[in-house]
Amino acid sequence: MFTSVERKFVERLRVGRLATADAGGAPHVVPVCFASEGNNIYITIDEKPKGASPKGLKRLRNIRENPQVAIVIDEYEEDWSRLAWVLFRGYAEILENGDEHAWAQDLLRGRYPQMRGMTLESLPVIAVRLSKVTSWGDLNA
Amino acid sequence: MFTSVERKFVERLRVGRLATADAGGAPHVVPVCFASEGNNIYITIDEKPKGASPKGLKRLRNIRENPQVAIVIDEYEEDWSRLAWVLFRGYAEILENGDEHAWAQDLLRGRYPQMRGMTLESLPVIAVRLSKVTSWGDLNA
Repeated sequence: MFTSVERKFVERLRVGRLATADAGGAPHVVPVCFASEGNNIYITIDEKPKGASPKGLKRLRNIRENPQVAIVIDEYEEDWSRLAWVLFRGYAEILENGDEHAWAQDLLRGRYPQMRGMTLESLPVIAVRLSKVTSWGDLNA
Repeated sequence: MFTSVERKFVERLRVGRLATADAGGAPHVVPVCFASEGNNIYITIDEKPKGASPKGLKRLRNIRENPQVAIVIDEYEEDWSRLAWVLFRGYAEILENGDEHAWAQDLLRGRYPQMRGMTLESLPVIAVRLSKVTSWGDLNA
């Protein structure tokens, strides 16, 4: 589903933006740390203070109402000839525990040293099952 | 609707990510250059090659089906204590011509020298009428 050029671009970048929508189709979008493996993208709720119950986050409430999501991976450059992005679309599943939950958090800790001191085990993982990958621009720039 | 700290943060950053959703609630999200004025955010379709008719872009098709949109403005940092974002939610209107269309493109050309050599006049402007502004993290970091 992914080309190797898309995969390399995505693995190099450190942040994506996750778009969800509620049952009435109102979109929401936030920056997220992520890891990709096969045809899945993993995002964990972490200990960054959100001023709210982690499980009550709008992104999770939207996914429970409507599992369709999109994630864009890109980096801004003032030289517009270098702009590029990869867009993922798919269906999100909320993992509360289990093997895939533990494995995804390990994958994320491997990519983000910032997560290594955090207690993540009781926090949900968003697993996005990809249905479509598109890209634009020069991914090698 | 905006605090002065939110406005300053938003004006400093050069890129946002625009989330739209189709009539069935499937989200889409792309990086966008933007300008803010009052309670509006302006985005113009420009001459970056999209490999498709500019007026057929998915973001425009979604807005015609469902005008609800969200835009997040943020910049990634490896020091997570410095992370912050501003999230706009509102209703998008597509301007094809007229005073506000011309004025918005002038505002964008003022902010982005990259647009000054482009012929934008026949390309649509997305005007987002803000209904809600929220933010998270240390906007002064």
